[in-house]
Order: sequence, then C-alpha cells, then structure tokens
Amino acid sequence: MRSDSSQTLPLSQVKVIDPFWAREIGLIRQAVIPYQWKALNDQIPDAAPSWWAHNMRAAARAVAAKKAGQLFIPSRSSAGIETLPEQGKQPLEDAFYGFVFQDSDGYKWLEAVAYQLMIRPDAALQAQAQKAVDMICAAQEEDGYLDTFYTLTGRERAFTNLRDHHELYCFGHLTEAAVAWRQATGQDDLLNAARRFGECIASKYGPDKERGCPGHEIAEMALMRLYEETGETQWRDLAKFFLDVRGTEPSTFALEDNRRRQEKGQPELPVSAESYAYYQAHKPVKDMDEAVGHAVRQMYLCSGMADEARICDDAAMEAACDRLWQSVVGEKLYITGGVGGTHVGEAFSRPFDLPADTAYSETCAAIGLAFFARRMLQLKPLSNYADVMEQALYNTVLSGMALDGQSFFYVNPLEVDPAACETDTRLSHVKPVRQKWFGCACCPPNIARIVSSLGQYIVTQTKDTLFFHLYIGSDITVNLGGAPLSLRMEADLMKNGDVHIAVTEGQAQGVLAFRDPAWAGNAQVKIPAGVKSWSENGYLYAKGIWKQGDQITIHFTMPVKAVKASPLVKEVMNMVCFTRGPLVFCAEEADNGKRLHLLRALPDQVAEAREKTVMIDGLTVPAITLPGKRVKEPGENAPLYMPWVPPETEDVEINLVPYFAWNNRGKGEMRVWLAERTGL
Amino acid sequence: MRSDSSQTLPLSQVKVIDPFWAREIGLIRQAVIPYQWKALNDQIPDAAPSWWAHNMRAAARAVAAKKAGQLFIPSRSSAGIETLPEQGKQPLEDAFYGFVFQDSDGYKWLEAVAYQLMIRPDAALQAQAQKAVDMICAAQEEDGYLDTFYTLTGRERAFTNLRDHHELYCFGHLTEAAVAWRQATGQDDLLNAARRFGECIASKYGPDKERGCPGHEIAEMALMRLYEETGETQWRDLAKFFLDVRGTEPSTFALEDNRRRQEKGQPELPVSAESYAYYQAHKPVKDMDEAVGHAVRQMYLCSGMADEARICDDAAMEAACDRLWQSVVGEKLYITGGVGGTHVGEAFSRPFDLPADTAYSETCAAIGLAFFARRMLQLKPLSNYADVMEQALYNTVLSGMALDGQSFFYVNPLEVDPAACETDTRLSHVKPVRQKWFGCACCPPNIARIVSSLGQYIVTQTKDTLFFHLYIGSDITVNLGGAPLSLRMEADLMKNGDVHIAVTEGQAQGVLAFRDPAWAGNAQVKIPAGVKSWSENGYLYAKGIWKQGDQITIHFTMPVKAVKASPLVKEVMNMVCFTRGPLVFCAEEADNGKRLHLLRALPDQVAEAREKTVMIDGLTVPAITLPGKRVKEPGENAPLYMPWVPPETEDVEINLVPYFAWNNRGKGEMRVWLAERTGL
Repeated sequence: MRSDSSQTLPLSQVKVIDPFWAREIGLIRQAVIPYQWKALNDQIPDAAPSWWAHNMRAAARAVAAKKAGQLFIPSRSSAGIETLPEQGKQPLEDAFYGFVFQDSDGYKWLEAVAYQLMIRPDAALQAQAQKAVDMICAAQEEDGYLDTFYTLTGRERAFTNLRDHHELYCFGHLTEAAVAWRQATGQDDLLNAARRFGECIASKYGPDKERGCPGHEIAEMALMRLYEETGETQWRDLAKFFLDVRGTEPSTFALEDNRRRQEKGQPELPVSAESYAYYQAHKPVKDMDEAVGHAVRQMYLCSGMADEARICDDAAMEAACDRLWQSVVGEKLYITGGVGGTHVGEAFSRPFDLPADTAYSETCAAIGLAFFARRMLQLKPLSNYADVMEQALYNTVLSGMALDGQSFFYVNPLEVDPAACETDTRLSHVKPVRQKWFGCACCPPNIARIVSSLGQYIVTQTKDTLFFHLYIGSDITVNLGGAPLSLRMEADLMKNGDVHIAVTEGQAQGVLAFRDPAWAGNAQVKIPAGVKSWSENGYLYAKGIWKQGDQITIHFTMPVKAVKASPLVKEVMNMVCFTRGPLVFCAEEADNGKRLHLLRALPDQVAEAREKTVMIDGLTVPAITLPGKRVKEPGENAPLYMPWVPPETEDVEINLVPYFAWNNRGKGEMRVWLAERTGL
Repeated sequence: MRSDSSQTLPLSQVKVIDPFWAREIGLIRQAVIPYQWKALNDQIPDAAPSWWAHNMRAAARAVAAKKAGQLFIPSRSSAGIETLPEQGKQPLEDAFYGFVFQDSDGYKWLEAVAYQLMIRPDAALQAQAQKAVDMICAAQEEDGYLDTFYTLTGRERAFTNLRDHHELYCFGHLTEAAVAWRQATGQDDLLNAARRFGECIASKYGPDKERGCPGHEIAEMALMRLYEETGETQWRDLAKFFLDVRGTEPSTFALEDNRRRQEKGQPELPVSAESYAYYQAHKPVKDMDEAVGHAVRQMYLCSGMADEARICDDAAMEAACDRLWQSVVGEKLYITGGVGGTHVGEAFSRPFDLPADTAYSETCAAIGLAFFARRMLQLKPLSNYADVMEQALYNTVLSGMALDGQSFFYVNPLEVDPAACETDTRLSHVKPVRQKWFGCACCPPNIARIVSSLGQYIVTQTKDTLFFHLYIGSDITVNLGGAPLSLRMEADLMKNGDVHIAVTEGQAQGVLAFRDPAWAGNAQVKIPAGVKSWSENGYLYAKGIWKQGDQITIHFTMPVKAVKASPLVKEVMNMVCFTRGPLVFCAEEADNGKRLHLLRALPDQVAEAREKTVMIDGLTVPAITLPGKRVKEPGENAPLYMPWVPPETEDVEINLVPYFAWNNRGKGEMRVWLAERTGL
C-alpha cells in the first residue's frame, strides 16, 4: 500500500445533506431503484425487456437439476452476444435471453441498494434485495461458477471467449455488489458467492495457470476492492495478474479466437496483440500512453490500474495512469466531462476529435471517468483529478437521467437536432429524448450506484488528513489521528460558491484539506485562529487541533465564464460555451426557439451575463441570460450561396440552462457550443 | 415535342479549341481511353479487376453453346450484387464476376470513344472499339436479351429483380453507347443490338403488359435518345411507361420482392411504395418535390423526366422537374456543384445538410446534375441551369480525375484530413488520394463520356436561335434559319472573362443568345451595328443577319469573390469560400501547411486578393493569394479548455488553388470552406 494514499469513508459516515444532491440520492431510492427492479423483472410496459430475473430463475432450475443428478439439456446455444425469443413466439422458460452480460444489471442494482441501505436502513428494501441475493446464490453452480449465459447455453463452453462473453465482467459486478452488500448488511451470503466464483476463476487463470484477461474490464478494480474488504491477498494477486497479462504477446484474445476457429475448421489468424486496441489489449498496460478503444472499458481499466498503483505501490503503473489521465484530460475530454468521441466501437476517437452532434459520450464512460479520477485522488491529491471528477458528475452523469428518474440517456451529445437524429442513420445512436430502458441497460443502474455512493467522492482521508474534494453538503464522521470528529459541511453549488464547515462534535489533531476548484475565482477563506495553513497542488491545507464549534468559511466566487476549446478541436472552432461553477450550460429550443445554430454568442460581453433560476419539471435550477445576436432567417426563396456580406443579425437574449437539466421539457434542439459572432 | 425547345448539335459541329478543355478532351483520348480499355481487360496492375471483357467473352461462349443446341450449365448463381472468385482460387472461365452492372463499364467506354471519333476520326481507335462492339453483339442471346450476369448465372431469373439487378440500367448504357456509335461511325451494329434488347424488354413491360421500372434509372433518358435518333415512337412510349409506373401503388419493387420471398417460403411484406425513396420510387414522379435517395439515380431520373417534358410537351412533368431542380439548387447543392450529402445510400441528405468532411458528392452525381441541367436548358433557356451545369463541370466533375488522367475520385469531399479518413471508419468512404480503378467503376468512364461530349453542353439551338451556354472556346457550325453559319468562339475562363465570337463563314438570319453568368460582374458587350438586342432570363439575345466577319466581343469581369452559404447550412456557419468565375478554390496543405482549420479568412478584405498562376503536375492553373490570419498552435501542454480570450493569431498569406486541381501534389489536407475571423 502506498503510504500517503487516502481512503474513502464508509457511506454511513458521509451523509449527504446538500439540497441538490440529497434530492438526487432520494430520487434514486424512491423512483429509480423501484423502477429498475421492475425493469429487471420485465414489468415496464413498452420497454425493452431485461431478462435478468428470467435468466436467474432459469439458471437456478438448471443448477438444481444438475445437483439432483438430472440431465440438463441447454435449450439453445448462441455464439453471438445477444439472444432473443424467436419472432412471434413466447420465450422459452429455460432459455437464456438478452445480452451475454445481462447478469450484471441486477448486480449493479443490488450495489446501489446496498449504498442506499448504508445511508439509511430500510427493512422493506433490504428484504427485496435479499430476494435478489437469494436468486443469485441459487444460480451458482456447485463449483462456484456463476454466469447464467453459460449455465443455460452450455457450461462446457465457459471461459472459451473472455474477449466477448463477459463472464469476468459479470464476476466484477457481482463482486462490487457483494462487498457493498456486506458493508451495508454485514451479511456474507453474496460475498461468499463472489469468493466462490473468484476461486473458480483463479483455479483456471493465474501466473502458473492459463493466461487470460477480461474483454470488458471491471474485475481488476472489483478484485482490488474484494482484497481491501477481506484482506485476502489472492484477490489482489488475481487483479494484478489480469493487468499484467493484458496486451502481452501472443494475444490471449487471438489465441482464444484461434481455438474457436480451429474447432470450426477455419484457418488460424495472427496472434499479435496490436489489433486489440478496442479492448485496451494492444500493448502491455504499463506501456500505454493514449486512451483508446471502448471508452467505458478504458476507464474501468484505468480505475483498476490506479487501484493497483496505490495498493501495490507500483511506480511504473502510476506513470502509466498519469499518461492515460493526460491523454484523456488533455486531448479527449468533452467539456461536459464525457468521453468517447465516436459511436464506432463506443470509443475514444483520435486526439482532439470531439464532435458535438455525433458524440458518443456514454453515461457509463463518464461514470468510469469519475471512478478513475477518484482513484487517482486516492493515489495523490492533485485538484485536477477532483475538477474532472466534478465535471463528469455534474454534467454527463446527471444528464444520463431525467429529473424524474424515469428515463435515461445512454449517449450524451453536445448538440441535438431531433429532426436530424430521427431521420439520419449517421446519428442513429443519438436519441432526442431519454429512453425508458435499454436492451443493453448498463447506464441506468450505473447512475444509481454512483449517485447512491456519492459520499465516497466527496471526501477521502489518510490517517491524519481529511480531504474535501467536492463541495457537496454533508454530515461527516471521521477518525482523525486516532480521535473521532464530526463535521457538517454546508454548501449548495447550484446557488453559489459559499462553503461553511463546522466541527459539530469531538476533538482531533490533524489536517483538513480543501480543494481550490479550477472554476473558482478568488477564494476567501476563514479558518480558526492558531490553525496553520498552506496551499499545495490545488488544495488548501489547514493543520491544527479541531474541536467542536470550530468554523471554516470559504467563499469561492463563481462567475459565469465563457470557455473555449483548444484550437486543435476543429469541431468547435469559432464556438464558445458558458459555465458557472462546475456546471456547463446549454441552449435549448424551449428557451431560444428552433435553429439554435443561428445564435451568435458574444463571449467578450460575458460580464453582462445575468444569473437567475428556472423551474424545470418541478426542480429549481440555475440559469443564465446573456446578450447575444441571432442571424436572421433567410426568406422563402433565399439562395443557397451568395456573395459574402456581414451576417444580418438581431439582438436577442440567449437563455441557458444546465446541461444536466436539458430535455426535461419535451423534445427539442440543444447546443452546448454556440457560434461566436463574426463578420465585424 | 415542345415547340420552343432547343437541341444539341452533333459533336462534329462543335469542336473545342479552348486551351483548358481541349487539353482535357485530348487527355481523355490519349490517356484515359487507353487506360480504361486496359481496365476493362483487367490489365491494370494493383487495381480492382473490372471483369468486363471476361464476362462478355464468357457470355458469348454461353450464347454460342445455346445456339448450337448445347447444354449450358450456369457456373454459379448469385443473389447478391457482387460476385468474386473464391479466395485463393483462379477465376472460373465461364463464371460471371464483379457487380451485376459490370456490363455498363464497357458501354460507357464505348460511348466516350464514339464521341472522340466524332470530334476526330481515328481508324485505330475505331478498330479497337469495333472489337468491343463485336464482343457485345456476340454476347446477345437469340431473343435479344443482353446482360452477361443473367446469361452466365441463370437466364430464367432475368427480369425478376429490376430493383437491384440493373438489367435496365445496362440496357440504358448500351443504348446511349449505341446511338453515339451510330452517330460517330454510321454503323447500325450496336444500335440493332440495343433495339433487339429493347424489343425483348418491351415484350415484357408496357401499359398492357407487366408493370415494372428500373431500380437504377438511365433507361428513361436513353430510350428518349433512341427515339430522337431513330424516330421510332415505341422507345419514347417505353420511356414514358417507365416514368409513369414509377412510384405508383402497389410498388413494383415490393411485388417483385414478395415473389422472391414467396419462392423462399418467407412471409410477404407490405407493398406500399413509400419506403422506396432510395430508388425515387416512393411516389409518382409527377408528385415529387424533393430530391431524395441515391443521388446519381435521382439525377438520371430527373434527366429522363426533363427529356419527357420536352419531347412529350408534358406540363405536369415540367412542373415536377422545376420542383426537383429547386430542391437541389436551393437546398441540397454543394458549392462545388456536387450533390449527395451522405454516404449512407450515396444519397441526398435532408435540406441544408451539406457537411464538408463527410460529404459523398459522387463524381457521377455531379455528372448527372450536368445531364439534368442541360436537359432543362433545352426545355427552357434560363441561365440558372447553365450556371449550375458549369459549376458541376468545372469543379466536381473535373475533381473526379487526376490532372494526368490516371486516377480517380468517386467521392469529392470539401474538406479532407488524410490522418482522419485513413483511421476513422466514419470517413471510410473518403479517400485522401485518387484511386487507380474501382471495383464499382462507374465514375471514371462517366468522366470520359461527359468530357468527350462537352460540345453538347456548350451550345444548343432552336430553328433560329443559337444559345451560348458555356464560354468554352469552340469552332461551331450551325444551320440557322435554314442557312449554314460557322463561328469561332475564343475564350479561356482559366484566365479571364473575355469572350470573342467571330462569324467565320456563311450568312444567316437569326438570333445568337449569350448567357450572362451568375459569377460575372458587369458585362461589356460589343455587337455589330444594326443587330437588335435584349436581355431575358439571364441571356442576352442578339437578332439580325449574321455574316462572315461579324464580331461579338464580351468582357465579363471575373473578380475573386468571397462566398457564404445560407445560414441554414449549419456545417459551414462562420465559414467562407472563395471563387473566381466558375471555379471554386480550396486551400491545400502543400501551400498552407498542416491544420488548415487554423486559417482565418478575412472575407471583408477580398478586394486585396491577388490572382496568379501556379504549375501543378505540368499544368498552369489559376491561383489566389489572400491576406489572412492563422490561429497560433497551442504549446505542448496547453489545456484542452480555457477561459475565452480573442484568438491569438498571426498574419499569413492564404494560398488557394482550384478545387479541381487539388490532390495532384501528393497526399495532404484540403479545405474549401475557411473559418472566418472572429473575436474582434
């Protein structure tokens, strides 16, 4: 373990009281979790079925039959990654349906429930979750194997396609849920299921066994978490093995593929790793210097790498994490904290290719970026990590869910014209309105689990230092330098940059460290007399003896800012966007009419921006009004091309709302980047 | 026949002497035609094979065998549109290979050869073409059927898939070639082959027979041409039938499809026409008001419709042509005269969706637009038709071929970054350099035939009026009001807008009409004394008695212009491009360095543009130098986002070359639309 690294606090010790975020967390509990339980049980009308409960029950019957010595004949075997009932026919009771990774939907739901139970116990919710846990445990095979796809389609094919068939991904999510479930309830039932599946996996893969690694990462960070929860070093070692074998020659994915090809009598293909960039398996992880391929996978891999760097004190891994972080943040990050510039492979595009309208920017990828950022913060407290984590959380992560928690975006573009994305197959991945549920429903439950576990992103601590990374109002209980201390942080960034922290109980000697956000103007800080303070890496450190009644007041100015991108981002040249605090704002049709591209922003007059609030779907959110121009609509028979003259414009007010709140007032256009005025 | 419509002149009566275009026509004769003959015979190393000669020879053997009463067993039958030899195996001697429409490549070549022979007889070239004609005639079946795909894969399937299998398309190109071949050589051999195939088709399809129409249009205009050449009304009537049946309910394409589905035991699908927009078969042609679907097909259809409107004096058809013209020119035309905003279906996109980098803008579609424009000009002499025809010819049509005639573009984007299109599958249709030949080689021989027949676009005539549509230097012989008249037009728009027309022989009474191009500034016109003149619809009419020695001098000013697009074209907002005369200019990396998007144009300073010439691949072409700015490159670790400040720029010269001449100096970036300066 790296000696100066910091740890998250149990969620029971960081209770969010922030007006905005407490509502979000409550929304997850009251709306999202019950809704998703229905989804997992295929009870949402007009939504794509999940098949989760169906598959679990079918697998449990199969496992029971096997245990009873009965012959189990797989109802069908599929080589693809999605299986659906035959058109026009009823689903078969004992068949597997949905994507191969469907088990993970329920694990993510369970993890979110566990976090909610840590925040506030709820016997009814726990009983419901216990049913899910029991269903999962019943689907586990005698040797610990737990993946309904192969249990139902032919167990003998298990572990033959780690690249595409997501067994290790499901294992990772099972493990994340199991740890959270034990932390929430003290129960070992799911943890033992994860351990047993882990042992089944470890009996096949490892330094002295077969080479192999997950096609979709997450097992790496999940195993590290299992190690941290249990102290059982075998999980840390298995995570390290998966990281170390990844991208080495010959490619384990290619070898797997060739084994399958051999069975079919097809000629073998080259076994070089270099073509596996989509899976981040094109080179050894410690040699990586560019974020590539499927964006969620890359972020999950980075998270596992950062865990490994911290837990194993691995300087070479830390250096790789630093390079990948710089690749994302310096060249591949949307202003909204999203990543993934192309829908082709749901992937990172080349550096500086950040198109607004065709963006992929998957909700899960922004969540993955927050995972990575939090782990880098644990490794070393540089405020840039927290800035980016905050950018992802307040913008793309929140945008992924409607304000009522009932519908979701998978893709989060920065410019939407419904007429275009409804008719143009080049934009078929861009939905103009949030969807109820997806066949591939990774994003909705991922939002539920990150929002429910927000407390783990607000503060982290070392033995004697408590880091305030996010200014989200919370009641915090911490053990600082051996003594318990309770603090209340009051903040509401939706309104302003005023932060007030009071020690509400206890006395302890140690350091409180407050992030100086990149968005803040001058900070005015009041700390108790006698406390020594200094700034370092974007944090203000305050060292002293802290006792009940101590007050810290920080006033961050939070002006509306006009922001531009590097000139290397071709897609937004001559465009500007507006931010305030951590929020990125956008123009919506509801406030500005159609054809938002006719708006011309005046970034040099940003000082004239007026801050206000608007009510959207019952929620008061901040808004901005700016002086601007609008290019006049051409007449009916206006020519397509004409001699250049300065554009004819009229003065307008440009009205902006937070990006996270867009598309909660019906279908309409949206733009984050506004064209600048030209032609003067 | 519409009484006031105009006719093209035989190519032997319009001999191009223009310095620029005479070289192009000579290039086609000396470089392109021999090269394409090799291509048709699969003799170009490292290029995709054409299979044309292979298929013709194989079909001839099959036909001979059938005639001799021998059993012919099709070597393979394919349901798809492309057939290739099995990997690693030699092609089978008697199998069909390539696309189902491969026959048309040779017909187009032959048509180009015929035009060249009309311009200047050449016994060796004619003898070579005769071989092709003989090969084609030998491949014709006894009942007149002539399509090597079905002859070789199973004649019993002929006419079962007009939608996709292009028999009527091949027939159209055969007919175009046959008419040209007769006009060039006086020989009926190929014409009779076309007639016999036409009779075979007409025996199946017609008002009292089966309903059906071509999936890829061209037969319509080809049949109208066959009618005009032979006076045989059955061809006009068949063309009219194909136009009238198109898009009516129930869809003939759907009915065909259902017959095939029925044979395979598949359930039938709905027979409504509305889903056939890709084929322009979604509604009756006379109800159409928007250019949609595959762009080449739409342009070929429009050409046939304009022929029908003229030949049948059909006001409803003319009105539909007018609406489609307005849809193209008002909403869907690239500044380069290209059409087809999306590679999905090689198609027209929605109105005003004209992206520069992902443009399709197929060379053949621009050629089709010139066909349509010429036919609209014949219908009624409005200068807008000629303006657009000229725009297509001087920019996208020419861009389709390298200056040395040895390589070709299929797709003509307005912005290219080789690094992007070589790695980004969203741009996989965009080639950063011209290709030697294509498996689907529609474009190269299409360029050959339109450039070789340029004389048909320069002038058209009614009984007593000769229209000068294009200012391309030519020796013209015409019969005006019953008397022969020879004229020499001297012009070179590559240099300036000076046009000099002299009557070199004869005397005739009538009207000469000169287009006033949209690109021209003030025109100074000198006409002989006693000639009456007036302006109408963009033409200057001059009526009188014309005799040897008469001179007309026109000086069109041809300034460099800054041009902008309608504000509805979102993709080029805040951008400008530069034109001079009919030429659109572009910035190339060779002259302006990498990262052309950093250039900032100053359209308000266009008066400071300097005209010059540059030598590209041995050809002197016009060029432009403009004062401009360039945004400074960010430093090594510059942030991706930053507070807005006016862009830091340096003064640069922006160097532009004609769009048609781009990519003749190796691989590099190119941009037509340059960002305007902002941030003042």
